[in-house]
Amino acid sequence: MNIHVLSLFPDMFTGVFGSSILKKAQEKGAVSLAVSDIREYSNNKHRQVDDYPYGGGAGMVLKPEPMFQAVETLTEGSTKKPRIILMCPQGERFTQKKAEELAKEEELIFLCGHYEGYDERIREHLVTDEISIGDFVLTGGELPAMTVIDAVVRLLPGVLGQEDSHIHDSFSTGLLEHPHYTRPADFRGMKVPDVLVSGNHGKIEQWREEESIRRTFERRPDLFEHIELSASQKAFLEKLKKEKVEE
Amino acid sequence: MNIHVLSLFPDMFTGVFGSSILKKAQEKGAVSLAVSDIREYSNNKHRQVDDYPYGGGAGMVLKPEPMFQAVETLTEGSTKKPRIILMCPQGERFTQKKAEELAKEEELIFLCGHYEGYDERIREHLVTDEISIGDFVLTGGELPAMTVIDAVVRLLPGVLGQEDSHIHDSFSTGLLEHPHYTRPADFRGMKVPDVLVSGNHGKIEQWREEESIRRTFERRPDLFEHIELSASQKAFLEKLKKEKVEE
Repeated sequence: MNIHVLSLFPDMFTGVFGSSILKKAQEKGAVSLAVSDIREYSNNKHRQVDDYPYGGGAGMVLKPEPMFQAVETLTEGSTKKPRIILMCPQGERFTQKKAEELAKEEELIFLCGHYEGYDERIREHLVTDEISIGDFVLTGGELPAMTVIDAVVRLLPGVLGQEDSHIHDSFSTGLLEHPHYTRPADFRGMKVPDVLVSGNHGKIEQWREEESIRRTFERRPDLFEHIELSASQKAFLEKLKKEKVEE
Repeated sequence: MNIHVLSLFPDMFTGVFGSSILKKAQEKGAVSLAVSDIREYSNNKHRQVDDYPYGGGAGMVLKPEPMFQAVETLTEGSTKKPRIILMCPQGERFTQKKAEELAKEEELIFLCGHYEGYDERIREHLVTDEISIGDFVLTGGELPAMTVIDAVVRLLPGVLGQEDSHIHDSFSTGLLEHPHYTRPADFRGMKVPDVLVSGNHGKIEQWREEESIRRTFERRPDLFEHIELSASQKAFLEKLKKEKVEE
């Protein structure tokens, strides 16, 4: 996969693209990650990429030309139009399902604004996707782009080793993860639950399944709407609901 | 404000902490940002910070000792216990309201896992907050921590200049932003709406307010649940609803 980011702060990406899974994924040839400065595509000798808003008001707006020019330069000669993703608070909320969808593409281009609004013509006529990572105000689209890139790249074939890939990640199973414990069994008087050191694998599996359901019930009951539970899981969930009513 | 991050990949933070608003906020003395390697707090000569899970299964689990040790070292001599924030997919969903809450603190410590689970005793006995930025699987807590830090630091007094601070950010007003346009008025035949070049400020304000409501209605109708609309805003929303029914 080829990923190209357009940003006004390309240096922000250095540490993240040069560490951990994103570093390994590039070394393995699973992905190529590149970042360009939007200012390189300004047709203005002062490398200006923004201008005052029509209709007045505070703040600046990213001009359409540099963004169109940048995308056209990057896609020159491509036979297939890549997904062009605008990171913005008004976009579709990013989910694991969206990560899986994007992981099937051959090429992704991310447009990151900074402080400012985008000229609406970028939104209407250039991009294929608008993505937001959540309802909070950030300084720019860079951190959201890195977040989406991390979520997508780790899904590419060959990126995660066996060590990493078989973790029962939250949201991959649909339920939140059960609690984990490791040594020491007694840390300052805080002990590991007996069942986990019992050696009884049937009971351990049951405990984990139940704790996973309990945690989901306590923290994210909305997730149950999207999961098909087994009969025993359903029975345990009903028990939790009954206990809660009785409290 | 003092912010300290504990991570297994401290290098990931370099670019982000050294650019843009986070860089400026440090230069202005509004925030001190530091990152430590959790391995420094291992009591093991191999700097081991994880171990096999009790009860068997794949994946490794972050041990309690280094995390407790790290937090205790960082808070030694503090009179007030700081907020200790665990970045994890099972945590409370991060919102602008949470950012505003955290911006009132004097000290924040962020714990970032990587690949692995946390020993449950960290969750139960060490941290004060568990935060998730969304329902997707990431390689570690580093990008979520940077995201929360960016959202929080930009709220600190003196960090944003006048230039930046008066932007009508999405989620600050409760509605999504209206479209923005800048020069050229005609870009390859794509034109700026007439009203914005009319010079009629009353009409421009009305257009912006209506487009803000329209966009919120089309993309994020859930946001209306939390907003008190004016009479004219309500009337416009009713009109949109009626148009939609008639389609």
